[in-house]
Amino acid sequence: MVLKETVSEVGERALIRMASSIYKDHNPSVDLTDDCAFTPIADEYILSSSDMISEKTHVPHGMTPWQIGWFITAVNLSDIASKGGNPIGILLSIGMPRTYLISSFLELIKGASSCATQYNTSIIGGDTKENDHLVISGTALGRVHKDFFMSRKGLQSDDVIAVTGTLGKAAAGFHSLKNQKKSGEINALCEPTPRVKEGQKLAETGLVHSCMDLSDGLSSSLYQLAELNHVGFEIQKEKLPISKELHDISLCDPTVDELYLSLHYGGDYELLFTASKKNISLFQKKLDEINVPLTVIGKVISGKETVFIYDSNENIEVLQNLGYEHFTNK
Amino acid sequence: MVLKETVSEVGERALIRMASSIYKDHNPSVDLTDDCAFTPIADEYILSSSDMISEKTHVPHGMTPWQIGWFITAVNLSDIASKGGNPIGILLSIGMPRTYLISSFLELIKGASSCATQYNTSIIGGDTKENDHLVISGTALGRVHKDFFMSRKGLQSDDVIAVTGTLGKAAAGFHSLKNQKKSGEINALCEPTPRVKEGQKLAETGLVHSCMDLSDGLSSSLYQLAELNHVGFEIQKEKLPISKELHDISLCDPTVDELYLSLHYGGDYELLFTASKKNISLFQKKLDEINVPLTVIGKVISGKETVFIYDSNENIEVLQNLGYEHFTNK
Repeated sequence: MVLKETVSEVGERALIRMASSIYKDHNPSVDLTDDCAFTPIADEYILSSSDMISEKTHVPHGMTPWQIGWFITAVNLSDIASKGGNPIGILLSIGMPRTYLISSFLELIKGASSCATQYNTSIIGGDTKENDHLVISGTALGRVHKDFFMSRKGLQSDDVIAVTGTLGKAAAGFHSLKNQKKSGEINALCEPTPRVKEGQKLAETGLVHSCMDLSDGLSSSLYQLAELNHVGFEIQKEKLPISKELHDISLCDPTVDELYLSLHYGGDYELLFTASKKNISLFQKKLDEINVPLTVIGKVISGKETVFIYDSNENIEVLQNLGYEHFTNK
Repeated sequence: MVLKETVSEVGERALIRMASSIYKDHNPSVDLTDDCAFTPIADEYILSSSDMISEKTHVPHGMTPWQIGWFITAVNLSDIASKGGNPIGILLSIGMPRTYLISSFLELIKGASSCATQYNTSIIGGDTKENDHLVISGTALGRVHKDFFMSRKGLQSDDVIAVTGTLGKAAAGFHSLKNQKKSGEINALCEPTPRVKEGQKLAETGLVHSCMDLSDGLSSSLYQLAELNHVGFEIQKEKLPISKELHDISLCDPTVDELYLSLHYGGDYELLFTASKKNISLFQKKLDEINVPLTVIGKVISGKETVFIYDSNENIEVLQNLGYEHFTNK
């Protein structure tokens, strides 16, 4: 194999594949394709997942230290949520410059701790070290009964595909932040709400066939599920639950393409899952109890790993895979 | 409370105390004073610990990517070792510039995976993200039966204090690296060997009263144990198991103070523990089975949290607390 030279030439997912292949050489059972690692202990899995953010590349200008703390905690909890897990703790490694203000550090810690508390867990450990700028790596731990674990794999050929909540909230928040509007939308971007309870409610039915969170955006997530399960998807344009916030912005600003952003912009931290059509009403009932909408947006199709999008006029086209990928210019 | 302005004015341990106090406000059972978080599941604890390193501040010039991968894995495993734990996996979050060479990334991954394999575990997850320079946060997970967990707390007033292996190996390695000598000592610095088996053998006796690893250096570790257990220590100078490597260097280079470095230089990743004097021969026997020396270096004393060092001429003085602390100039 001839290696390309720098990491930016291959992108994050190729790097993970290469790393995974080395880990597998040492231990063939290692599987980095899911949202979490899952380690069997008695009749449960211990779930673990790490996410790193850097002030330079991941923190929109205007995000407060409190929000940064909330954000890193929430995105890590989202991975536990997507497996149906019950969080058992968060570890936070914080790199920061010597000149970082103690008051900012404490606000960050408060944001992280508030988010953990909101989801019935705690910050249980971590590290603080010097770094040129703020960089934070979070690790979320969780537990789930083996029978309830929702893998990314296991999708069945006659499944429908559904999504919790709405799409494009984070995109709306980014638009408001960029335009220096003070509005509630910014919270959806900076203080995302991981679907912990929702994941547990879905998982406890034992009827979900595959599940992941939407951190990278809908199109990217669909392609990841398709590749992993060797299927395609067919998505209906009119079914997409575009958020009211994004819709309202698009009405006032013609440069905002609500469909494009709902399909490709990440950061919504909703759950995307597949199951038999006949069980959707049960899921709907479970999520109604906590006032969370659920929308079937399409179905699995056989054949190659391609995602099609069609509208009510039966125009059909291939959905581009445009979600965010680190180290690339996408 | 009037807050000092920047994090460098208070140092790492004060920051951890402040963070801990906020976490405790949300959940009084949170305890950040041990090497690992420990979460009860059935009759075991799930151990978790994170350590972060940055190329700019933690990686000596000359360390290879393979060694960086080994190092971050080893230092995380050392925390599991110090609680008597059995490792169940490592997560690695790697921040790196877009220009980082793929070949270096793969070497780093191989070093990390080799270290994990050496200690019967695997890299089970992580993240890769863009950062101005290389920064890595590792999280080690482990498990230990509740009866065998070795806390930092629990020391008894008539305990002796002992250390595995030798002191000053990392200091010797740093000296060699700085002087561009190619020698085996460099491995002790760049490829430390966490005392995983040793920790398990000690823990399984159920007779260790308190234990921690020596990452920050002997003096700092002694003061941390003293403060946590509200006791003091008396250490005998001639008993300190100074490494042969450091001793040999000090013979050739009069600027190298072997006693000072053995007391204050970190990076040895040995285990420091207390127990009843009568059980030391049992521990010795257990560690003899794997050819690891064990040395009683002193004993617990009552009174204020001070560490004294004396020699065979009965000169006694207060040991300075000079171990490395991040964000300070120590």
